[in-house]
Order: sequence, then structure tokens, then C-alpha cells
Amino acid sequence: MELLNDLASLRAWVAARDLARERIGFVPTMGALHAGHLSLVRQARLRCDRVVASIFVNPTQFGPHEDFANYPRTLEADRAMLAGEGCDALFLPDAGMIYPDGFGTRVVVGPLGEDLCGRSRPGHFDGVALVVTILFHLVRPAVAFFGLKDYQQFVVIRRMARDLAMPVEVVGLPTVREADGLAMSSRNRYLEPGERQRAGSLYRALLAAKERYRAGERDPAVLEGEALRVLREGGIEGVEYVAVREAESLAPMERVSGEPVMLLAARVGRARLIDNMVLSLA
Amino acid sequence: MELLNDLASLRAWVAARDLARERIGFVPTMGALHAGHLSLVRQARLRCDRVVASIFVNPTQFGPHEDFANYPRTLEADRAMLAGEGCDALFLPDAGMIYPDGFGTRVVVGPLGEDLCGRSRPGHFDGVALVVTILFHLVRPAVAFFGLKDYQQFVVIRRMARDLAMPVEVVGLPTVREADGLAMSSRNRYLEPGERQRAGSLYRALLAAKERYRAGERDPAVLEGEALRVLREGGIEGVEYVAVREAESLAPMERVSGEPVMLLAARVGRARLIDNMVLSLA
Repeated sequence: MELLNDLASLRAWVAARDLARERIGFVPTMGALHAGHLSLVRQARLRCDRVVASIFVNPTQFGPHEDFANYPRTLEADRAMLAGEGCDALFLPDAGMIYPDGFGTRVVVGPLGEDLCGRSRPGHFDGVALVVTILFHLVRPAVAFFGLKDYQQFVVIRRMARDLAMPVEVVGLPTVREADGLAMSSRNRYLEPGERQRAGSLYRALLAAKERYRAGERDPAVLEGEALRVLREGGIEGVEYVAVREAESLAPMERVSGEPVMLLAARVGRARLIDNMVLSLA
Repeated sequence: MELLNDLASLRAWVAARDLARERIGFVPTMGALHAGHLSLVRQARLRCDRVVASIFVNPTQFGPHEDFANYPRTLEADRAMLAGEGCDALFLPDAGMIYPDGFGTRVVVGPLGEDLCGRSRPGHFDGVALVVTILFHLVRPAVAFFGLKDYQQFVVIRRMARDLAMPVEVVGLPTVREADGLAMSSRNRYLEPGERQRAGSLYRALLAAKERYRAGERDPAVLEGEALRVLREGGIEGVEYVAVREAESLAPMERVSGEPVMLLAARVGRARLIDNMVLSLA
């Protein structure tokens, strides 16, 4: 696996792919990789000629009191996992390459980024949109792969790519889960053993709501209440939101229909965890 | 010259250029073409394999009380001029193609776009940045050409392209002038004969300031005062601003140095005219 530590080596790698007419698959990450990330690399290998991942803990998507400084950084393990998965190249920029002196431009995603996680993380999705835009321009992928665990992020990036007519296909891939259903996340490392055990109830809450939906319940407040009940029973105190939304626009609905998505966020110990599930009928 | 009236035909044209490994030169315009635009096409032909122009009167860069509805539209003449200049293709989108339903993303250029013309046209440069971003993604040019008559616009677009790492070279080309020095502009069509005559003093004001600069004057207020005096003598009442600025950052300076740019804007009759000049020493 080629290590691309600066813009010149990335540009040379991208130019070589262009010359060879190879379609680039791109997996942008913040490192601290787990099986969810590796599933993106695997899919990228299937769908593209070459795969490049990036590891960049992006400062502009963290709020002033968030975990930017303490976000887990596990570069050696990450490299080994990516190489083992057959990833062709790893781009490792530093903040000065992405945001050089005099930087002033922003990308603003609008209402899609202001609700749900955006309420407690103002500006977060604008920071995500900005870094993804820059990375897309540098890497010029045919397809970019994101985990659906970060569902709102996926919707925001897909919307942005469509709005700005970016020549890239944005693909979202299913959440990879631990044996008890906990969605894999770099922030699961923050969990103490007791917290880790309780965290499994996030998944059970989503399953319970889905079951009620399949049984015919169409009132979003009842579905959300069902999930909240399971979270409370599971000892999850710090619920930030539980919401049933239209899957593409993330709009609330008076009566649920189609295949809506339930999203939730909760603080468990030091970790802020998110998860979601499409309330499919099948 | 190929007419590209929809996204599918543009995409096919761009894909064919890519297949042939031809470098695209791009001249985005709002139509009502004049010799200034044609000089951009000519330069694009010299520097690129293929040239595509676009004509799109972009609603997001006009304020609610500006001249969007009345902006001159002269498509037949524009087509003939572009074809005569050897332009290979003309992209003619409508607003629904550029901003489809559900559109929500914005590009924000920050302080660079808030001063000078940004003061009387809030949001104008964000609208420019947005449409240029979309057009760059659709056209995927190697080089894009802009007139330096719109100096602040050029600085904003160059800054945005650098910040967002867009894979395009942004080139600014010299202002083309009428015999009396008036900068060519689509909005010159708004001028009544007497106004047209007075409008020549914008150029004379810039020349007078440049002369004072070459003679050793370094106080920006004195240079601006000299230009204002010439404008007043020339019967230009509606001066919006006259400002000497650092050429790249557009920052004000206490003492002028290097090769600063003087920029001005004035209302003459129905027209809002802008012009600028580098106060070069040579």
C-alpha cells in the first residue's frame, strides 16, 4: 500500500490513475479503523479499479468542547488493517495541507445539517461538507464510500454532491455491528465495561421500534416512545434525541409511511453514540 | 459550434473530451457578449484543446432589487460572436438544471466577498462562488477564464478554487476598453448617450491615481481623493466606492506599496459600473 504523505504524492498517484484510465474508489476516514471502515474498502475494491483511503481528523467538524484533541489515533494499526484489506493507497494529510494559511471558503449545507445531530453540534455538518469537498477535489474519485451508521452525514454529503454537481457517486453502506448489535464506532473505545454493556440497548431500542412499525404503528411519537422506553430500561440516561424521519429529506412526518428511518443519539459515559435503522416493512 | 442545451448533452461533450484527452478551456458568461468576452475565448483557444462557453444569467448572484429580470439577453448575437471566434461549444442551462428542486447547499467566500462590491451587493459573491462551483463540476475544465474588469470576482473565485483544491487553473485576463477607456461591460447598454460620455471619466480617474502613484504618492486617501476629484469633474455623482487595496487579499493598507489595485464603483444613470487598475510602477 502506497503512503501518500503530502499533496504532491497524492496528485502524482491520482494523475497516474487518470493516465491508466483507472476508476478511483475513495474511503475518507478519521482513522481509529474498525470492521465498518474495512467493509467500505472491500466494497470499493469490488466496484473500482483502485482504492485510496484517507485518514484525517478534521478540525473543522469538531466543536470547541468536543473530543478533537482526544479522538483516538491508531495509525500503525490502521495501516496494517488497510493493507490487509488490499487498499492501494493511504492519504495522510495534515491540517496545514487541507487548510493552508489564508483559507476562508466555507460550504454550508443548510437545514439538512441543522436538525438532529446538528442541534448539539452546530457547524458540524458544514465542517464535514467542507473537508469532503476538498478531499473529493484532491482525490477525484469515481465513487466515494460512507458508512450508513452516520446516516445524517451520508444524507448531507449525498445532497451536497448532487447540489454542486460533483462528478462522483456517493455510496452509503450498511452499519457493521458487534455481536450484541452495538454499531461499530471509533468512539466505542471511550466506553468503560459497564457502559459498553448498556450501549447494546441502542440497537435493541431501534429493533423494538421497527417491530412496532411492522405491527402497524404509524404514530411517530409512539414509535419514538417505544425506543425511549427500551433505552431507559437499558440504563441509558443521556438520550439526546430519538426521531423518526423521512429517509431522504430527514423531514418529520405526522403519520409515518414508506420506509422511514429512526435515528438516535445518546451520551454513554464519555462517548456520544449515534445509531439508526430503516423501519422497513419487509 | 455545438449547442448544449441540457445536462445530458453537456456531459456527453465533456466525456468525449475526456476520452480524447483534450484539455477543456471554459469561459463562463452571463451573455450580452462584447469584445472582452471574446478575448477570453481567444485566449482559451490558444491555451486549451477545446473551448466551451456558457451563458447563464445566474439568479443567485442578483439581489432582490437588482437587474436580474432586465439583464440584457442577446442570445442570437452571442451565438454568432462565439461561433465566429472558434468556440467549440456553448452550454445554455436554465435555472432548473443548475438549481433543481430541493437545492440547499451554499458556498460562502467569507470576508473577501463582503467588502467593496459586497457592501452594496450582500450575498453577491456567494452566489457567484456557488454557480462557478457547479459549472466547474459540470464542465471539468483544465483552465477557466475570467475578465479582470470584475477584479473582486476574480480574486474571490481564485481564492475559492485554491481553498477547495479545485483541479482547475483560474486565469484572469486584462480588461478590454472602448476608445475613450470605458471598460467594456454588458451593463454599458443601460447608458443613455450623455451618460455614456460621462462614463469615460471612470477610466480617467484610475489613470490620474496611477500617475500620482508613479510620481511617488503613497497615501491611499490622497490617491483615492485624486480619483474622486476626476470623477466629480467628469460629472459622476453616484460614486459607491473608490479604494486602493492590496492586489491579492484586497486588504486596505496604511501606506501603499508594491503593485496595489485601485477599484471603484459608481452609478451612472440606470447602470452600476465598476472598473479597476493595477497601480503599476513600470
